[in-house]
Amino acid sequence: MQIARTIAEFRALRRGARPPLGFVPTMGYLHAGHRALIERARSECAAVAVSIFVNPMQFGPNEDFERYPRDEPGDLALCEAAGADLILIPPLHEMYPAGTSTAVRVGGLTGVLEGAHRPGHFDGVATIVTKLFNVVTPDRSYFGRKDAQQLRVIRRLVRDLDLPVEIVDCATVREPDGLALSSRNVYLSPEERAQALSLSRGLRRAEEAFVAGERDAEALRRLVRDEIEAQPLARIDYVSLADSESLAELEGRVGGPALLSLAVRFGGTRLIDNVVLEPPAAG
Amino acid sequence: MQIARTIAEFRALRRGARPPLGFVPTMGYLHAGHRALIERARSECAAVAVSIFVNPMQFGPNEDFERYPRDEPGDLALCEAAGADLILIPPLHEMYPAGTSTAVRVGGLTGVLEGAHRPGHFDGVATIVTKLFNVVTPDRSYFGRKDAQQLRVIRRLVRDLDLPVEIVDCATVREPDGLALSSRNVYLSPEERAQALSLSRGLRRAEEAFVAGERDAEALRRLVRDEIEAQPLARIDYVSLADSESLAELEGRVGGPALLSLAVRFGGTRLIDNVVLEPPAAG
Repeated sequence: MQIARTIAEFRALRRGARPPLGFVPTMGYLHAGHRALIERARSECAAVAVSIFVNPMQFGPNEDFERYPRDEPGDLALCEAAGADLILIPPLHEMYPAGTSTAVRVGGLTGVLEGAHRPGHFDGVATIVTKLFNVVTPDRSYFGRKDAQQLRVIRRLVRDLDLPVEIVDCATVREPDGLALSSRNVYLSPEERAQALSLSRGLRRAEEAFVAGERDAEALRRLVRDEIEAQPLARIDYVSLADSESLAELEGRVGGPALLSLAVRFGGTRLIDNVVLEPPAAG
Repeated sequence: MQIARTIAEFRALRRGARPPLGFVPTMGYLHAGHRALIERARSECAAVAVSIFVNPMQFGPNEDFERYPRDEPGDLALCEAAGADLILIPPLHEMYPAGTSTAVRVGGLTGVLEGAHRPGHFDGVATIVTKLFNVVTPDRSYFGRKDAQQLRVIRRLVRDLDLPVEIVDCATVREPDGLALSSRNVYLSPEERAQALSLSRGLRRAEEAFVAGERDAEALRRLVRDEIEAQPLARIDYVSLADSESLAELEGRVGGPALLSLAVRFGGTRLIDNVVLEPPAAG
């Protein structure tokens, strides 16, 4: 495994990598969800690159950029164990040199859900992903489904800007008790963590109801909300049931693939989770 | 010379091109200025690609997108004669499929001059150039200095998004009487064309004054304006003397490289031209 700490170093290493190159962009503090992405890339690609960069542009002014958890030695050990070949850890001043003034904006999809609650967040995501793709020039890039809206924004970005990369999405990895893995879980107190299980439990209840035939959008959202609102420490940002592609909020009967997603705060910690509900194909 | 009429066709042809690949993006209706760009690429690269695409996103609602001149047979003959290997003529629906919602915005530089007079123009330029670079994946791309602000916007874009391409700029090509070549010159009536010579004449007068020692920014702009305002059919959009890098308008004494640029309308035809004034290095 080789580690590049400048863009030029990475590009030099990249020239020696056999195609196809798989790429997993991360903000570090890696967990088993990231490991699954790297292992998937490992199984499908001749070479695997991982970037570790906490991107200030995707954090709002009152968000947790400063305290976002960091653990470079742990990250490198995980990357090595998962089979990464190339690591890019670019310095902030190379990613955003003085006078930087360019942004990539994906419209439409970004006005709702996370985009509505985190203004500017997806401009930051779209810009850094475009930059990383231009530095890494991967053949495939791997993203988790936990960041459901991000995944859709990146697919749209790749299509709209003709980025020559294939996006591969991978299932959310969960703790045995259902909590979706997140670098931010480390912020949770034991009490908050216990109550945070209501997120996956609520989604599971709604999914079970959906499988049993419930198709009313508001009834499905209500099942999730009831579960979470029973937790005294939980503050809901949103519980949404939306068209899985356009992210337009659904009313009435669910007829096609739908994204059931949520964001909930526990004190200063904001968690997200989701599940896609797919009606069985008409027989 | 091979012609691709879809992105997929171009990518297939591109895989066979030897590096380095030089690229000249154009809106067609090619003239000797474009030919000079293609020939320069030919002289420096193993393979040369030219794109021909009239990009609607860089035209304002009241601009000349619909009537912008087109001559594909003439363009292909010029490309062939100048030594191009690969031609990309993408269809509109592939460059902007239904639901396209992504834009690349270069801030700072784009609020003045052309950007101030053509709102949205540089978002269109930055977005299409990013897309074309992603499709063509050139090693070098060639731009004329006539579009002075565009050149600076593209250099900033390439730096800010880490696009793996080298930008090469080439001198403006002029008619023997001084008129800068432009696809839009074809719109000019004989009378307008005669009066349009005031643009290059005004720039030349100012340049001569500068070489002779004139350093007052307003006096230099005044020399250009006087020349143009003497033409009854000319309407000045702007005459600017700005820092050549930041494009901040200059007041008082000119101390470093400065861009003297202008936009002037003759009826419905809008022409631009410029010259860079460089004080001699301190001996």
